[in-house]
Amino acid sequence: MFVDAFARGIQVIRTFGPEREKQTLSDVAACAGISRASARRLLHTLLHLNYVHFDGRYFSLKPTILDLGYSYISSMAFGEFAVEAMHDLASRTNSSCSIGILEGYDVLYVARISVRRLTARVFPIGGRFPAHILAMGRPQLAALSDDALDKYLANAAIERFTPYTVVDRDELRRIIRADRERGWSVVKRELDEGVCAIGMPLKNKSGRVIAGLGLGLRPDRADDPAVIEEARVEIAKAVETINGLVRLRG
Amino acid sequence: MFVDAFARGIQVIRTFGPEREKQTLSDVAACAGISRASARRLLHTLLHLNYVHFDGRYFSLKPTILDLGYSYISSMAFGEFAVEAMHDLASRTNSSCSIGILEGYDVLYVARISVRRLTARVFPIGGRFPAHILAMGRPQLAALSDDALDKYLANAAIERFTPYTVVDRDELRRIIRADRERGWSVVKRELDEGVCAIGMPLKNKSGRVIAGLGLGLRPDRADDPAVIEEARVEIAKAVETINGLVRLRG
Repeated sequence: MFVDAFARGIQVIRTFGPEREKQTLSDVAACAGISRASARRLLHTLLHLNYVHFDGRYFSLKPTILDLGYSYISSMAFGEFAVEAMHDLASRTNSSCSIGILEGYDVLYVARISVRRLTARVFPIGGRFPAHILAMGRPQLAALSDDALDKYLANAAIERFTPYTVVDRDELRRIIRADRERGWSVVKRELDEGVCAIGMPLKNKSGRVIAGLGLGLRPDRADDPAVIEEARVEIAKAVETINGLVRLRG
Repeated sequence: MFVDAFARGIQVIRTFGPEREKQTLSDVAACAGISRASARRLLHTLLHLNYVHFDGRYFSLKPTILDLGYSYISSMAFGEFAVEAMHDLASRTNSSCSIGILEGYDVLYVARISVRRLTARVFPIGGRFPAHILAMGRPQLAALSDDALDKYLANAAIERFTPYTVVDRDELRRIIRADRERGWSVVKRELDEGVCAIGMPLKNKSGRVIAGLGLGLRPDRADDPAVIEEARVEIAKAVETINGLVRLRG
């Protein structure tokens, strides 16, 4: 049932990245772990379909490749009304906000409204970080069954990003279970010393958690309980709007 | 040389979209114009690679599909420093800005910093609009040879979006040539009555135009020459920063 040629073609697309922006045929074949003949046919197909550029020596992706991810972005359950609610939230709080979806051990950014630069870190759509280190990831872990959460904690790569990163698995379990009780999460300086955020779960019509909404907190004010409470109230309004629209959508 | 199975697989991904978020096997086969057996094998492959979800009846894309476009976003020549310059521009002007790349008759949005909601229109990454109607598209058309511009104007679908849309091809040619002389473009209310923007070209190391940077203008102030001049000065600074960093990048 499995179509090898299709899987290898996808693998070829994925060989391109920050350090591999332009590649020769041999680069692609080596990185994808396929023969030169196979790489040549797949790159030729991508060239023909207008997804890659070839300058005679180097292949590079063309922006048309975004059409593939765009099929997802434009068909997202949240759709345009989530973007509106996110704009309102960002403008009320003058902070960036993001929607991310738990996929395996990562949260993938699927929408972001960015209001100013708090940090040198960039969070592009399609980017991913470990779920337990994101304010929009923890509420999704909190929604897992105890067994699934234990499995996550036992198998996730728990890396130290900053001196503030919680790397103790029992401590993480305790934090995530407490977040489950109160319905929201705060992550302070664990991914980047300049990044603090508050997060809440987004639900589908059946009430199942399907994503997380995160709102940036100014790191210099993130220890003030009044600031957290204000952010909690604001993000809760946005969550209510988005969940309400998801329910309405039929 | 052409790998049919790979091309059909890409076609299957592209059948998903705003009106086709969830599809049965038959929907996919019909929309992609392929046999049910072929659609079944390709969907099975996507399922196995974790790019689609199947609930027993309907297939839908998973956010992991963004990995494919992400290869491009993360390998973009502009990279993170363009995002920084865009953040600075957006924060100095309190306006949204975007980078878009001319591909055929469209400009594709590859980066966007959105500071507040000026319009009901949403401009997601990977979205596309006709080049001649975008402030970041016209500078790219202006960089074409006279022959290539004539070919564009002769063949592009020139659609009326608002009462302000310029649909006369000779008038468009005159506007774009004047933009070529002065080095920037303004588009007022032609795509959407609530959208005005100013645009300038971005160049690679060899000085070739490779993208456009657009900056939103408040529609209620877009007819004031002082407002346009202020926006022109601000966008020029950002273009200089980005072009300088692209040159430095080696």
